[in-house]
Amino acid sequence: MTTWIDYNKKSLELHKAYHWKLATQSKVKLETMDDLSTYYSPWVAAPCIEIDKNPEKAYEYTWKSNSVAVVSDWSAILWLWNLWALAGLPVMEWKAILFKEFWNIDAVPIVVNTQDPDEIIKLVEQIAPSFWGINLEDIAAPKCFYIESELKKRLNIPVFHDDQHWTAIVVLAWIINALKLRTWELKNQKIVISWAGAAAIAIWKLLQEAWAKNIIFSDSKGIISTSRNDLNEYKKEILAYNKDDISWTIKDALIWADIFIWASKWNILTSKDIKTMNTKPIIFALANPTPEISPEEAKKWWAFIIATWRWDYPNQVNNVLVFPGIFRGALDARLPQITEKHAVIAAHTLAACVKNLTVDSILPTVLEKDVANKIAKAIINGKEF
Amino acid sequence: MTTWIDYNKKSLELHKAYHWKLATQSKVKLETMDDLSTYYSPWVAAPCIEIDKNPEKAYEYTWKSNSVAVVSDWSAILWLWNLWALAGLPVMEWKAILFKEFWNIDAVPIVVNTQDPDEIIKLVEQIAPSFWGINLEDIAAPKCFYIESELKKRLNIPVFHDDQHWTAIVVLAWIINALKLRTWELKNQKIVISWAGAAAIAIWKLLQEAWAKNIIFSDSKGIISTSRNDLNEYKKEILAYNKDDISWTIKDALIWADIFIWASKWNILTSKDIKTMNTKPIIFALANPTPEISPEEAKKWWAFIIATWRWDYPNQVNNVLVFPGIFRGALDARLPQITEKHAVIAAHTLAACVKNLTVDSILPTVLEKDVANKIAKAIINGKEF
Repeated sequence: MTTWIDYNKKSLELHKAYHWKLATQSKVKLETMDDLSTYYSPWVAAPCIEIDKNPEKAYEYTWKSNSVAVVSDWSAILWLWNLWALAGLPVMEWKAILFKEFWNIDAVPIVVNTQDPDEIIKLVEQIAPSFWGINLEDIAAPKCFYIESELKKRLNIPVFHDDQHWTAIVVLAWIINALKLRTWELKNQKIVISWAGAAAIAIWKLLQEAWAKNIIFSDSKGIISTSRNDLNEYKKEILAYNKDDISWTIKDALIWADIFIWASKWNILTSKDIKTMNTKPIIFALANPTPEISPEEAKKWWAFIIATWRWDYPNQVNNVLVFPGIFRGALDARLPQITEKHAVIAAHTLAACVKNLTVDSILPTVLEKDVANKIAKAIINGKEF
Repeated sequence: MTTWIDYNKKSLELHKAYHWKLATQSKVKLETMDDLSTYYSPWVAAPCIEIDKNPEKAYEYTWKSNSVAVVSDWSAILWLWNLWALAGLPVMEWKAILFKEFWNIDAVPIVVNTQDPDEIIKLVEQIAPSFWGINLEDIAAPKCFYIESELKKRLNIPVFHDDQHWTAIVVLAWIINALKLRTWELKNQKIVISWAGAAAIAIWKLLQEAWAKNIIFSDSKGIISTSRNDLNEYKKEILAYNKDDISWTIKDALIWADIFIWASKWNILTSKDIKTMNTKPIIFALANPTPEISPEEAKKWWAFIIATWRWDYPNQVNNVLVFPGIFRGALDARLPQITEKHAVIAAHTLAACVKNLTVDSILPTVLEKDVANKIAKAIINGKEF
């Protein structure tokens, strides 16, 4: 069996062998002096003048029509968290490659040498003219919420924070299909989210958009309730939805729960606690790279279905499943912004891609490239669910 | 004959047909789940951790080893000057393509939504971790001098302002070869520069680096001398070199001159004034897109050789001749900065590329792609001239 050390070594060897993985290319061949003069100097002046008269023409004449900046302040790189800017570059370079490989979007990795939210907002505003859209990546909560919402207000191009939304969409798609296997409805499900990160709040918002009614949210200090006096503005928003002001322990919450979204190594639970959940529980164990509980162990404690980030278990939660399709659809439809509505459309479309649903095959694998196509079409059609 | 209107129209049609010209590509194929896991999540963590320990590793593991940002504040786009950011994008997109086509450097166009020098400096500092080098482009004088020199101080990657240096290098190469035809030495030549832009000051500096001794510099108000009280700090630097404190009119200066670098449509000269210059004068008529004087007319007034930006006359001054080779050489040699010394090396190497020198064939054409190779090698070898 390939061990973790082997993978680490192989990854370094491959990264070194290729030196750099993302490259640019010209779609046009420059072969004569006439080509150079017509395309570049002096006649490149013609599209410049047209765009100066009408900015919309940039979408006809330049790479703005197909380009995305993958911007990171490296405050939440994978599970490594706060590395410094340069050390986050491999992740952003790969994300840019995935944009290209999974649906022909020309993306550029930009790791920024600041972690100040207002500086990041200003910087993204300043580079925005060059790009069709902005994919924020690996920015820690809670500042990611502020950065994203400010940029959505200030820019006239789509802005989406990867770690929040793409993950939320995959989780929702996953739940939709898992519930099909149980023939239960989302609105009746009791859901516990034990996590404080960017994705957790996005999952919570998206589940509501998709009609889930009973959600309890716990961070490292316990369930978000009025008994807490340490809540930031984003967690206060969650508070409003805890109508019965439940302030159980996380262990009590599990006894109540049907679905448990677990992404926290806080040691407040042991894997055995899973067995106290309602019949046929659905578990997400989203710590990376080691899930809080292995699928083998979860099944031992009566879990019905379990999903992890891991590629070497069934049911990998992988956001590559959604972002190329949503961005492609939004781009082709020239959407001014990507919203929660589009996220719900993407989740339902992704869920519908699975023909033979089983407990070990809840979602398509990331290698099924037609998924992006289907999601893009659904986004363009604005199909409601 | 193809007219200007035809070229304009053809340029727009071609830009529209290709929609966007610059694209990205992956050098690696992602075909299996194992590929995705090893390269991307989770094992992309391996190079991240290595770079966190030793930033130099970014040059082994990421696209920083081959990437350049083409950054413009669009304050001096071609001869159009102050368009707005988006309208400058076609020029930067092409410049990025030229980097790729002429020597395989992966460049990205970044037009910035600010023209404040300190904001530009801050922004470039913030995005610098993602790139091997910075090519500043179409930024107006005098702020371009401040922006470039500050960034050279603050960053540990090469920074070069295209409009200043690349043009200066081509002009120097041109003069070197033109003087070979006259068998005269540069240090004895009397040179008049009539121009106030970024490139003019760079040409003045580079000519001195290459041992020219007698240079008179004129802006729209006249020759830079102590009789002037309207000089900015950059022009005051020029003043120190006007040892005899010459304060003639530009017409008088021409009577004295052997070489005239003319890039100003100030109507203080007529084309006939050329004939007052010394024997066999060398003329640069660098206004774009219409030179101050046509080659036909200059020859009528006894010009020995004339160079313009125009592709449809002999002797085009085109900076595509130098920047790919210098950047490639600097990149392969991992130079911490590109200096005036490298500029002189590049100019001599470029000049030496011409085998059969005639008055109508002073420099190679931009289609001779081997030129970049030769310049890169000379930069790597640090060959002195």
